[in-house]
Amino acid sequence: MTAHHALPCGALGIARAYADGAFSARELIEATLARIDAYDAQVNAFTAITRDRALAAADALDARRARGGALPPLAGVPFAAKNHFNIEGISTLAGSRVLAGAPPATQDATLVKRLTAQGAILTGALNMDEFAYGFTTENHHAGPCRNPHDLTRSAGGSSGGSAAAVAAGFVPVTLGTDTNGSVRVPASLCGVFGVKPTFGRLSRYGTYPFVASLDHMGAFARSAEDLTAIYDALQFADPLDPACAQRAFESANTKPGALRVARLGGYFDEHANDDARDASHTAAAALDATRTIEYPAADAARGAAFLITAAEGGQLHMENLRSHYDDREPLSRDRLIAGALLPAAWLVQAQRVRAALRRRVLELFEHYDVLIAPATPVVAPHVGDEFMEINGERLAVRPNLGLLTQPVSCLGLPVVAAPMRTKNGLPIAVQLIAPPWREDLAFEAARRLEAESVAYCPPPPSFDEAHLASGADA
Amino acid sequence: MTAHHALPCGALGIARAYADGAFSARELIEATLARIDAYDAQVNAFTAITRDRALAAADALDARRARGGALPPLAGVPFAAKNHFNIEGISTLAGSRVLAGAPPATQDATLVKRLTAQGAILTGALNMDEFAYGFTTENHHAGPCRNPHDLTRSAGGSSGGSAAAVAAGFVPVTLGTDTNGSVRVPASLCGVFGVKPTFGRLSRYGTYPFVASLDHMGAFARSAEDLTAIYDALQFADPLDPACAQRAFESANTKPGALRVARLGGYFDEHANDDARDASHTAAAALDATRTIEYPAADAARGAAFLITAAEGGQLHMENLRSHYDDREPLSRDRLIAGALLPAAWLVQAQRVRAALRRRVLELFEHYDVLIAPATPVVAPHVGDEFMEINGERLAVRPNLGLLTQPVSCLGLPVVAAPMRTKNGLPIAVQLIAPPWREDLAFEAARRLEAESVAYCPPPPSFDEAHLASGADA
Repeated sequence: MTAHHALPCGALGIARAYADGAFSARELIEATLARIDAYDAQVNAFTAITRDRALAAADALDARRARGGALPPLAGVPFAAKNHFNIEGISTLAGSRVLAGAPPATQDATLVKRLTAQGAILTGALNMDEFAYGFTTENHHAGPCRNPHDLTRSAGGSSGGSAAAVAAGFVPVTLGTDTNGSVRVPASLCGVFGVKPTFGRLSRYGTYPFVASLDHMGAFARSAEDLTAIYDALQFADPLDPACAQRAFESANTKPGALRVARLGGYFDEHANDDARDASHTAAAALDATRTIEYPAADAARGAAFLITAAEGGQLHMENLRSHYDDREPLSRDRLIAGALLPAAWLVQAQRVRAALRRRVLELFEHYDVLIAPATPVVAPHVGDEFMEINGERLAVRPNLGLLTQPVSCLGLPVVAAPMRTKNGLPIAVQLIAPPWREDLAFEAARRLEAESVAYCPPPPSFDEAHLASGADA
Repeated sequence: MTAHHALPCGALGIARAYADGAFSARELIEATLARIDAYDAQVNAFTAITRDRALAAADALDARRARGGALPPLAGVPFAAKNHFNIEGISTLAGSRVLAGAPPATQDATLVKRLTAQGAILTGALNMDEFAYGFTTENHHAGPCRNPHDLTRSAGGSSGGSAAAVAAGFVPVTLGTDTNGSVRVPASLCGVFGVKPTFGRLSRYGTYPFVASLDHMGAFARSAEDLTAIYDALQFADPLDPACAQRAFESANTKPGALRVARLGGYFDEHANDDARDASHTAAAALDATRTIEYPAADAARGAAFLITAAEGGQLHMENLRSHYDDREPLSRDRLIAGALLPAAWLVQAQRVRAALRRRVLELFEHYDVLIAPATPVVAPHVGDEFMEINGERLAVRPNLGLLTQPVSCLGLPVVAAPMRTKNGLPIAVQLIAPPWREDLAFEAARRLEAESVAYCPPPPSFDEAHLASGADA
């Protein structure tokens, strides 16, 4: 069995096939690592490969299967985590040279443990914007992460490696984080499913912080079904994370009845080009959303998110900005310094705006279960692009890829990003936005879009000669 | 019946006597107003008298009693509210000249409505530090509020008028607010009972804001029993105040069993003079508290409270500081400007410290129901005093009267201030601090101290020749 063999490329497909004895975990992991070895030099999704750990876990699983032991639900599923997550035995770099000398983590982050406990096999750590402050994963230390569907283009960020690794077919599941769009932007640009749950839903324990009041943990997968299963595996009330709400487990796999869906217009149309608007309309039509409504003061919500991010991030990094300025990512270091020095009154104003808008937006959910908006204003820009044009306006790429995600995460709402395809063949995702703690509604909308083939993950690219596994997931 | 007649001076005593037909509400209100007219020029507790409204309410109540109608529980009880609270028909000044031209409020604040609905009769608005930013009620517009027990001394602040009006025997109940100590400090200096409940417990609707994340509503009364009844009348989940938690009514009048009580040492002893420490020890002995424990990082909590107050207050007032600088209270305007311009990173740090300390302090309540600390480091300073000496250290009076209250309110904990008497005859209070939402424990401790005559409200002063009502409450 080699990297060129056809293997199922979805998480549940792999788990089922493994349980059925279709292959050994060692075969699967060797093939997975071989594919990464062969092609990741082109993508640059991985910053570390946990080869020995993965093979040891595979052998242990194979031994368990051989003994006839019960297999956990994700047995054999390869995964990887943004290098924001602690992985026992390696240093958590968070994309930064500043942490290069940090001691290896002594244990896995909670979410890595959760997946491992269910039989999933960690294969490595993934590229990201330094300290998660960016939307393009143009990391000056690790090099840029490239979009598997067009290697001249960006994978998005800051969880660019996480989206690219799934899009490239390296692993079917990855973990990422989303403060202002860092799951949803790369999911959109790479054409994979992503989830950013309600603020406080998933444990942040053992991850590198960025903006305490905005940081969300999330995940990527190749199908809505896979993502639902992964999300359910991740969620629990973690006493080690004070922000992780003590909510009971609420499966995202429940089947609600009729969904009341609306499309967000106004700001979300004005800041989207034709590709993005088309995706929003197509998803709305498929979900019988006849109304287009306004999200109140989306621009103010985004402004609040910007200020809060810069201020909280600036506070967190003040010491190392003083001591390690030259080691810091040039794309973000001055923004953090400016954030630390903002007048406190601006931050107070931003926090007030956030609280007030949250109350207003929650009123929308008295009438709707799911709101639809594009996840990015455009398809993937080229690596290095500084500007893009949206409806005749020239905007800086790096901050503005988050134009459509920031107003949503700022209020802590759960979102599933569902990938669609544009006329030019490149992917773009819609955000399926639900009320707090109702991830099930967003997942159900994603499953329906997928069932109607409106949303889907494009097959992994062939890179050179190999064309792996596309469509073999059935 | 004149101001010189002996009337019951406690709230429940008045309500019982009124229900028994001992006097008419008109007699009572006329006597109340006459006493205010006669003596408040010396105290300066009131900034407005709602004479017509009070007399109309009294007549309506008398008519109801004459018809044999059921009387509400606080029927006839005179009260007054810090001029932070909206009162229909008069302008809410919040102690400031800036608001002198503000239109009259079109309705009462929620808490004023609550007391009115239960038969209490509003008699006026009370003096305060401008926009509640101060601990001495040395208001440059309205003049300083003076301590009824020694007119050369401060009543404390910012709810100085509220505490003084009760201490003077003008009204048995007043409403105040507490952001950093503005109920507890004047309760201590004036020798009355005061309550600052859990953050979010009492509705702020219809009051002038100051520091959204720290503002608490509270009340003053002459006995723990009265205060318990008033607090129970005030509490309900108000949909008009987003910060007012949707908690069920939880009576403060329940009788818990044995109380586990500890005395706070360390910071709370170091920043207290002999009078204050003696009060703390006496209360501890009366409540069988044998242990003295440390409140974690009280100094950091106080620092956080200072920064958050200045920044949030500065943001709120930025526009009128620009446009009305010369109209602003000289004692606080520059502090607010400095607060608005603090680096945002400092505010973030303060908010983090607050959240972290709250978690640590809550652990104390696994072992204790009530914590005891002095409410002020000293008895009432003289009006105009700029410095005081505490354990050999010379400290500015105005900010440091809140030394012992700020670390507690910063974490949102409920506190009842119970007045005691020092060797020199001037009052000082202890704080009875309970876990969040357990006001009942603090009230029970206060009732026990009162039952043992350890805590009590001194009789109202005689002012000139009249010596009213002291001891006539039985």
